[in-house]
Amino acid sequence: MISGERFSVVYRLLGDEKEAHRKAWDICLEQTVEFPEELVPAGMIRDEIVGRIEDFKPVSECAYEATISYAVETTANEFTQLLNVVFGNISIKPGYRVERLEMPDSLLCQYRGPRFGREGLREFLGVKNRPLLFTALKPMGLNPGQLADMAYKCALGGIDMIKDDHGLTDQIFASFDERVYRCVEAVEKANSKTGRRCIYIPNITAPADKILMRAKTAKELGAKGLIVSPAITGMDIMRILANDDQLALPIFSHPAFQGSYVTSQDNGISHFALFGQITRLAGADAVIYPNFGGRFSFSRVECEAIARGTSVDMDRIKKIFPSPGGGISLDRIEELLEVYGKEVVFLVGGGLFKHGTDLIENCRYFSQMVSKF
Amino acid sequence: MISGERFSVVYRLLGDEKEAHRKAWDICLEQTVEFPEELVPAGMIRDEIVGRIEDFKPVSECAYEATISYAVETTANEFTQLLNVVFGNISIKPGYRVERLEMPDSLLCQYRGPRFGREGLREFLGVKNRPLLFTALKPMGLNPGQLADMAYKCALGGIDMIKDDHGLTDQIFASFDERVYRCVEAVEKANSKTGRRCIYIPNITAPADKILMRAKTAKELGAKGLIVSPAITGMDIMRILANDDQLALPIFSHPAFQGSYVTSQDNGISHFALFGQITRLAGADAVIYPNFGGRFSFSRVECEAIARGTSVDMDRIKKIFPSPGGGISLDRIEELLEVYGKEVVFLVGGGLFKHGTDLIENCRYFSQMVSKF
Repeated sequence: MISGERFSVVYRLLGDEKEAHRKAWDICLEQTVEFPEELVPAGMIRDEIVGRIEDFKPVSECAYEATISYAVETTANEFTQLLNVVFGNISIKPGYRVERLEMPDSLLCQYRGPRFGREGLREFLGVKNRPLLFTALKPMGLNPGQLADMAYKCALGGIDMIKDDHGLTDQIFASFDERVYRCVEAVEKANSKTGRRCIYIPNITAPADKILMRAKTAKELGAKGLIVSPAITGMDIMRILANDDQLALPIFSHPAFQGSYVTSQDNGISHFALFGQITRLAGADAVIYPNFGGRFSFSRVECEAIARGTSVDMDRIKKIFPSPGGGISLDRIEELLEVYGKEVVFLVGGGLFKHGTDLIENCRYFSQMVSKF
Repeated sequence: MISGERFSVVYRLLGDEKEAHRKAWDICLEQTVEFPEELVPAGMIRDEIVGRIEDFKPVSECAYEATISYAVETTANEFTQLLNVVFGNISIKPGYRVERLEMPDSLLCQYRGPRFGREGLREFLGVKNRPLLFTALKPMGLNPGQLADMAYKCALGGIDMIKDDHGLTDQIFASFDERVYRCVEAVEKANSKTGRRCIYIPNITAPADKILMRAKTAKELGAKGLIVSPAITGMDIMRILANDDQLALPIFSHPAFQGSYVTSQDNGISHFALFGQITRLAGADAVIYPNFGGRFSFSRVECEAIARGTSVDMDRIKKIFPSPGGGISLDRIEELLEVYGKEVVFLVGGGLFKHGTDLIENCRYFSQMVSKF
């Protein structure tokens, strides 16, 4: 019944050796049997179900790293239950942080991961060998015609992908259906002039009973990608969307409501694991996160860790694009190319509008900046 | 197009007056237009869409509370977008914490909230005027027959509600369908002996495309309640489940994977707002959380705040049960009754097994402890 196949999670545990080791053993019980140690039945449950400390070592004066393995069967082949085994109850205890996942093929083979990944998205867009250009339609309150006009200009100026701001859902001033219809039309009109393949990506973050309907509507209306905020909708929805052969559209993950997992060094989930490994396993083709030096507080090291997580070896699971955003100004592109190289999607929102008064020219400048290097 | 109706969120902001005020204004922009201030269009967007600082005052030497109002229309009548306006991007910035929501009828009228609430759940169970007794079937690894045997004994011993441990989903050693079938049968057999109305509550935390199917299967097999971990599935699923007139079952919220929102005093969401107001608005009839003094680290003050959040005035939205768990031992019941009064669901898992070797007798003791006061 139990195959013997195990996957591992590396946790960072706050405390001296004794305290950290107590925490490691606590994880073994809490994340599996959730039962007093002395009452855990002998045999299969004690030997296989209870987590196992595979490695334990200091990483600083007051923190240790413990590698804990779990039977693959504890996850029931469910992405949701995998999240629960990795960090369910332990999320509630301070001083425990998920650093990284170590997933053998016996676990990875349960997941398809991203449909497109880096190579697939490049092919879809017809863009080789340079960073991809991404922007957002905003501010909230504009009507569909105004948003479409903005999308038209951005597409004309050479942007590759244009998404809804993540706060645009189905508000009275820009209903989902009309917005998608108008923006698709505008981007196609621009494409017919430029000969390029710019795509419009609507936000389908929505109530649980409406997400798939919005995805389907978006597809029918001609949208060529979908963006969702998985901390709001539940992360598993990305897997459903990515696996849907009728949709077959690139999926973009937005970090709204997800920040609490990464605001502390001592708790939560590492940038590498959350925005890299987990988002990728769920099936996103690109992961949006706030870049260092912008409006948010991620450090350069944390952003580099995300980029590593998007490309670290995960067997058949494709590499995905890191998509730094959140206050990137156009004059930083050169610096960012040094950090990320060319396998990156630059999300420039406000910065594109701030650069000058002519949006089309701003987009062209952005495009030239990126192509120059 | 904009009604003028607004709801408010009270944020705790870290910093001196200048820094905290900068943060307050940052929220006004970040949570709505997400656009450089100088470029926000005049008129409706600047006047109505952008958040508004309604109040700002110090709460300690290095923290301020800002009350920020938003146009009701920004939420699009969607619970998911409400979460996004309240804490979407701001979740990513350190030093911002949601303290409480101030929701006028114009917002609350969009939600049905819990179907049962405190009174409805008491009526459903036929239990008046005493705390409700709740336990969990565990450890993971037991087979359906063993879990059902445990459920039978607990029901016979006088427990009111018996749930799956939150880690039981559809594992090979206890598949969902067989487990639900056997446990329902066992609890009904016990009820036929005791004349009581104990209910079995399966865990339907599952992949996004399977949750509703499991809920339906549970109902068909005779389960009388549903438990879900909303941080894993997405919180909106509780609203869907609670609103479903075909299901019409009590909904229980489990805090797995939700802890990162409350592990810091300076970031995230307060216990009051997350486990109280938001969970209640979503439609849970009882909210499970780790009690103070157990295996977890919530303080007594935080637990009391949760209890307040479950009963604070929210117009037609029913009061729900706080359900402290996570290491409650039977000898603490008297102390806990002083804290919570009688409007509480005591979740005792491991403690029920630890008390003595006869599970039925332990349950009877638990029941007597609660009824005695």
